[in-house]
Amino acid sequence: MDSLTRAAARLPAWRGEAGARIMARLDALARHSSEADALTRLYLTDAHRDALATLGAWMREAGLAVRQDEVGNLIGRREGTAPGLPALLLGSHVDTVRNAGKYDGPLGIVAAIEAVARLNDTPLPFAIEILALGDEEGVRFPAALTGARAFAGTLDPATLAATDAEGITMRAALEAFGGSPDRIAAAARHERDVLAYLELHIEQGPVLEAEGLPVGIVTAIAGAERHVIEVTGVAGHAGTVPMALRHDALAAGAEMVLAAERIARETTDLVATVGQMTALPGAVNVIPSAARFSLDIRSPSDAVRRDAVARLFMHWREIAARRGVTLSSRKNFEEEAAPCAPALMALLDAAVTRAGVRVRHLPSGAGHDGLAIASLCPIGMLFLRCRGGISHNPAEAIAEEDAGLAACILADTLRHFDPAPFASHAQTIKD
Amino acid sequence: MDSLTRAAARLPAWRGEAGARIMARLDALARHSSEADALTRLYLTDAHRDALATLGAWMREAGLAVRQDEVGNLIGRREGTAPGLPALLLGSHVDTVRNAGKYDGPLGIVAAIEAVARLNDTPLPFAIEILALGDEEGVRFPAALTGARAFAGTLDPATLAATDAEGITMRAALEAFGGSPDRIAAAARHERDVLAYLELHIEQGPVLEAEGLPVGIVTAIAGAERHVIEVTGVAGHAGTVPMALRHDALAAGAEMVLAAERIARETTDLVATVGQMTALPGAVNVIPSAARFSLDIRSPSDAVRRDAVARLFMHWREIAARRGVTLSSRKNFEEEAAPCAPALMALLDAAVTRAGVRVRHLPSGAGHDGLAIASLCPIGMLFLRCRGGISHNPAEAIAEEDAGLAACILADTLRHFDPAPFASHAQTIKD
Repeated sequence: MDSLTRAAARLPAWRGEAGARIMARLDALARHSSEADALTRLYLTDAHRDALATLGAWMREAGLAVRQDEVGNLIGRREGTAPGLPALLLGSHVDTVRNAGKYDGPLGIVAAIEAVARLNDTPLPFAIEILALGDEEGVRFPAALTGARAFAGTLDPATLAATDAEGITMRAALEAFGGSPDRIAAAARHERDVLAYLELHIEQGPVLEAEGLPVGIVTAIAGAERHVIEVTGVAGHAGTVPMALRHDALAAGAEMVLAAERIARETTDLVATVGQMTALPGAVNVIPSAARFSLDIRSPSDAVRRDAVARLFMHWREIAARRGVTLSSRKNFEEEAAPCAPALMALLDAAVTRAGVRVRHLPSGAGHDGLAIASLCPIGMLFLRCRGGISHNPAEAIAEEDAGLAACILADTLRHFDPAPFASHAQTIKD
Repeated sequence: MDSLTRAAARLPAWRGEAGARIMARLDALARHSSEADALTRLYLTDAHRDALATLGAWMREAGLAVRQDEVGNLIGRREGTAPGLPALLLGSHVDTVRNAGKYDGPLGIVAAIEAVARLNDTPLPFAIEILALGDEEGVRFPAALTGARAFAGTLDPATLAATDAEGITMRAALEAFGGSPDRIAAAARHERDVLAYLELHIEQGPVLEAEGLPVGIVTAIAGAERHVIEVTGVAGHAGTVPMALRHDALAAGAEMVLAAERIARETTDLVATVGQMTALPGAVNVIPSAARFSLDIRSPSDAVRRDAVARLFMHWREIAARRGVTLSSRKNFEEEAAPCAPALMALLDAAVTRAGVRVRHLPSGAGHDGLAIASLCPIGMLFLRCRGGISHNPAEAIAEEDAGLAACILADTLRHFDPAPFASHAQTIKD
């Protein structure tokens, strides 16, 4: 009996119906796009507005009270039976990259609506809020996680001056959208009003598929740093400079690429990627004088990442010295890891186990809204397997039965959610 | 006493004067350019025409009879005292790359004129011809060695249809230049009319400079082949695909670059260069799905080169299989090596030794006119050291004393040249 068959035996009867409705709604939502033949839904566009209208209708149908906050986040709220208890947050982001898939973001909103709708007859003591956060991807403006940062109270007001490709400021776009750029602080929630944030998201990687698991529990959203590296050697004629007299910048760069790969392979919970590489001057018959490449390195442990970067640069300096080339680099991005709360992981572990699925913990190498919300409250994430690990691509795909399963697990988690362990966080519980 | 001091003791008094005149003439010749601030002298341009007028005047001053052949080669001839003996050929090419140095090509013409002028009072039995070949670099039209090929009788008439960047055919350019596109066959010389071809050229590499030697004797013009390689892996999110599940095309390409370097280092008389490298899609946060790169591999021995390429591709296929990526390649260039004639090498060895310089044999990794002229007659080449091995660059530089020394060695070689060993080649000697 495989894990899905076992799971099916313990899951509610509505699983199949829920899966079908989630898939149909994600298809419908994907039609809110700025492009006729592709899904592109950027922050504060007409497509964004239309998507919120659709989501708002579904939220109201699920019994939620709906409002749009100052920065364009849509929030659907169901009150708890115990007045004064803060809210458990669900949801994800509604914006997409250009030429996107249908699941990165919207899945977490639509499945949360489904789960809450299935609990209409189940009184819970705490409030629930489903968030459709306006900007996670950061495609339109040079700023990401705008919705979550405003919600968490960490959005720098200077971000409002950012402009899109057409020169429109975020401030102007937000005003046109019905937001309140002068009142973004009012979008910020207080710690006492929220218990925790729980997000369902597609994995965007191949681990769960490779292991035959529909879902996995995230341990942390990885921290990351990026560097731009330039190796400078000596150009020369490809025919006339003997191998022993060369200072080939590309050969040095190639050795550095392999050193990064080796260190990442040897280090648990670390990935390193060189995605860009250029040899200069770039002629078939000229020994490269320079090699320019990028490094992206991530780990759920900031200590592991920093140690790996230090070891890598030590290796790189050794390579450069041995080859008589110079190495220069610039770090142009760094974001610390956001660990998931052990208490939320335990809740998800239990729900996944009850669903008959083997518990698999894995880090999230991709960034998520939780990175910003982690400054407000404990975060937890459930990953859903996606076909081939593909995302940010129209080929993004999930299975209907997995979507239904995820809604069941979310509903089961809510049913078993005990606000007490989060009391130390949400101060009103102590009042 | 270093090699130069020893050399100076045995060299004619005119060495210094010759060096000064060669340098002054090379400076003057560099003013015949299509650009005001850079030296660019392409085949069949006004700059080419002006350079030939200047060279023709110098040739006549040196006692040579001057003519321009059907494809724009300039030929200065001095008759020998033994009527019927064929000609020893000297010279090099007069065209340059864009933004060129002053020495690649013209040095061999100007120094030959100097050497012959210094032999005005020295009767020699054989004729001497100095060639200013019109196109070696192949920059204006997609065809190289045009002048030497026409001279050797191997120019494909279809080459006349080649067009430059402005759509002008070689045929039209040749007509405007005063050439005879319909009579290119008449530019071809017969074996019986030539003894051998002897060219002085800058090394375009760092070997002589590194060893403190002003000149070296070329063993062969290397054969070469070029390949375009594409490695195809699987794209993925830089954060979400664990190292063990990756099929990173750039990492595979990096390993292949190092394999090429290692094989070239391990193989005597072989150089291999990857001058171009691109990772696709080329995003900092995407695992490369493809890596495209070039391979240029050269050896004075065609057997050595072919064996090395076979070994290299065996390694590459092993790398591709191990990494789960695919390898495709296309050979887009191949030229066989042109060995220098041992009899000419021996003559140059003797002259270099008489000049007090240690004999250094080295292959030419760069292509030269001799590649084409080798099909007509034995070839020999003398390399002059150049600063930093730099060429195809305005920074190209040689020392005045080296230029004077080269003229002395050329004159001495002519003085000691015995046409007899070349009799088996030049049939008229047998008549």
